[in-house]
Amino acid sequence: MKLFRTLISYDEALRTVLAHASRTGYEEIRFDDALNRVLAEDIRSPIDSPPFDRAAMDGYAIRGEDSFGASPQRPVLLTIRKGVPGPEAAVECLDVREGECVPIATGMPVPRGSNAVVMLEYTKERDGTLEVYRPVPPGKNVSVRGEDVKAGEVVLPAGRRLRAHDIGMLAMLFQRTVRVYQRATIGIISTGDELIDPRTSSVADEHAQGTRPSKIADSNSYMLAAFTHPLANPHRIGILQDDPEAIKAAIRSALEGACDAMLVTGGSSVGSRDFLTDVVEALGELLFHGVAMRPGEPTGFGIINRRPIFVLPGYPVAAIAAFELLVRPFLLALHGVADERIRLPAIARKDIPSAVGRTDFVRVKLQKEAGRYYAEPIRVSGSGILSSMTKSDGFLVVAANKEGIAAGETAAVTLYE
Amino acid sequence: MKLFRTLISYDEALRTVLAHASRTGYEEIRFDDALNRVLAEDIRSPIDSPPFDRAAMDGYAIRGEDSFGASPQRPVLLTIRKGVPGPEAAVECLDVREGECVPIATGMPVPRGSNAVVMLEYTKERDGTLEVYRPVPPGKNVSVRGEDVKAGEVVLPAGRRLRAHDIGMLAMLFQRTVRVYQRATIGIISTGDELIDPRTSSVADEHAQGTRPSKIADSNSYMLAAFTHPLANPHRIGILQDDPEAIKAAIRSALEGACDAMLVTGGSSVGSRDFLTDVVEALGELLFHGVAMRPGEPTGFGIINRRPIFVLPGYPVAAIAAFELLVRPFLLALHGVADERIRLPAIARKDIPSAVGRTDFVRVKLQKEAGRYYAEPIRVSGSGILSSMTKSDGFLVVAANKEGIAAGETAAVTLYE
Repeated sequence: MKLFRTLISYDEALRTVLAHASRTGYEEIRFDDALNRVLAEDIRSPIDSPPFDRAAMDGYAIRGEDSFGASPQRPVLLTIRKGVPGPEAAVECLDVREGECVPIATGMPVPRGSNAVVMLEYTKERDGTLEVYRPVPPGKNVSVRGEDVKAGEVVLPAGRRLRAHDIGMLAMLFQRTVRVYQRATIGIISTGDELIDPRTSSVADEHAQGTRPSKIADSNSYMLAAFTHPLANPHRIGILQDDPEAIKAAIRSALEGACDAMLVTGGSSVGSRDFLTDVVEALGELLFHGVAMRPGEPTGFGIINRRPIFVLPGYPVAAIAAFELLVRPFLLALHGVADERIRLPAIARKDIPSAVGRTDFVRVKLQKEAGRYYAEPIRVSGSGILSSMTKSDGFLVVAANKEGIAAGETAAVTLYE
Repeated sequence: MKLFRTLISYDEALRTVLAHASRTGYEEIRFDDALNRVLAEDIRSPIDSPPFDRAAMDGYAIRGEDSFGASPQRPVLLTIRKGVPGPEAAVECLDVREGECVPIATGMPVPRGSNAVVMLEYTKERDGTLEVYRPVPPGKNVSVRGEDVKAGEVVLPAGRRLRAHDIGMLAMLFQRTVRVYQRATIGIISTGDELIDPRTSSVADEHAQGTRPSKIADSNSYMLAAFTHPLANPHRIGILQDDPEAIKAAIRSALEGACDAMLVTGGSSVGSRDFLTDVVEALGELLFHGVAMRPGEPTGFGIINRRPIFVLPGYPVAAIAAFELLVRPFLLALHGVADERIRLPAIARKDIPSAVGRTDFVRVKLQKEAGRYYAEPIRVSGSGILSSMTKSDGFLVVAANKEGIAAGETAAVTLYE
């Protein structure tokens, strides 16, 4: 059983990981299948939007100049041009001349000759004549062609993860397909003689009776698949016993097959963590093993056939810490995204001690008081305590150059998705 | 063309909407399919976890009392019991007696008789004898049975949207299936003679040439489907012309069919908004039409055959505002969730004027300076400007009882998902 006496810093580990995150290829998909996908091209607008000058309010299209001087006491009188069967007619058939107006609804093209819209509430119709009670400068309540988006303008840049309103923008621009990064496929293996599959085992009863107390459920492969899911395609290979040859064969086959990268978690039995990194060394190159972070210290990373492989700790909270701090940035980089999550400033309730040189992943519960958020660290005895995750709202990171966070200090909390 | 002179308050609109959000039924699904689904039952642990007292560190299992007085100068000497083929043997075959120790790795069951683990780095092995350099109190570095979760404890409450680490917890507890709320099916229709489908039309070229400038793409139905997708199953019915009978038939058929609720957006042509609410009145009951909010004022809501229907504004930003402020809480309530999003406190860069009695939905761009976030409101001339969404990072709400937000004031920003 080795100790990790020569740890690399978290920053160095992150640099190493990102240096090996080669972007995935492109694919062209329908815009309405692209929610949460990452653009691999700048989207330029092929059109002006709005495509024509249009009314921004319900009312009457007028020549603004005609309304100057209008007041409730001295309304301006305009002739209403009627016979407006539809929006096309409004554009194509009507001209608004001096002293005239045309009824118009929000979104309709503004007829030729007019340059402003007077809101309905500042008018009154009386026998085919409109009384206007307020002056309206030219341009008022008109959305000019191209005001939203101009033809040729980059509206959504490459590297953007598409949100719901971006899908609306793509629709508005008739962008039938978009080029996005292919979703990488990530192979996931849990190793450990003590693991059994909770989907197929009914060991819970046995546990309750205490007859096989040393077997535990494989939660890691399911959990890592769920963490991976929003970012890439998880391919859960399942549990392998602590048998180096079987693990080698499984990794080789996954990396020769569909998997662009792998996550392998170690068991907790004697030596199992070391033989995983031995397996990586035997099949390829181990770039690091042991990172000055807590939890997550026994994290390793290597390259087999130019494909990256993470060796993650078997303890679930350590595996999550390694996922959040190393695997997530890696998966984002694979797809051309910088980690864009906005972090919540929150005030530490208690001192959060750490050690200089070590990066800490601290689960916190948030409390809101008088519009400010407070972060209460969840203290537990080890990284096996998964309830420290489920009871928390997010995590904060104590950087390697800090001795800790003092009570009252503001720290940046990453919220769970 | 009606005006909404009698608007109800946003709070009243929200109350009305939530009063008609009947929860969906239950279904039992596999735990590993349950990411982002909402629990319809409390999950109680069937087991203690850890299921046995286990080592929280690599080292040696000892009787803590034996180490008292140990120091680098005067190490305590313990006899190492060897022959530990695996974790089960450690539990079942070994007893640690006074003056003895057993090598142990993180996660392994602590052998009978021992009550603490001394970390590897505070020991040295020499000829079958262990030198211990530090005293270790009983209980140290041992995760006791049930420390993470106790049998019978509620670990995940009903109403919780399941996150990745919750999936890990369900696996750990051998919770093969979970009862969740069924995802509601939400019918989505865009209406308007001016709309064409961007997926099947190639009108962009025509736009560029200006020959049919009055036709615009239906972005709303695609966008609302994307907004709905994380919360419920969108069923995009598509575009309907401004023909009350056709719209009636489509709504009737959707609500008699699979749709639990509907979102219908109005066109921007004269009167189309009103006839949508007329259609709702003809088929069922219109509960409100016109909300004191901006954008989103012409939002309506009704009940047809006991199924809720939202009449949303045709302008995309107004439709989004109505979605975020009324439809999202409704969809969350359908699935038994309170709106749990944590909002980011941010300092207003500029005055954001509003009117007392009106609720404003303000798009903002965030800037970070010295650890604090600043919110820059995006000012645009109307609710048709979709780029005001794509250029923003989130939104803030100016409540009806406020005259606005002053520059320098802190407001809560909801970040887009």
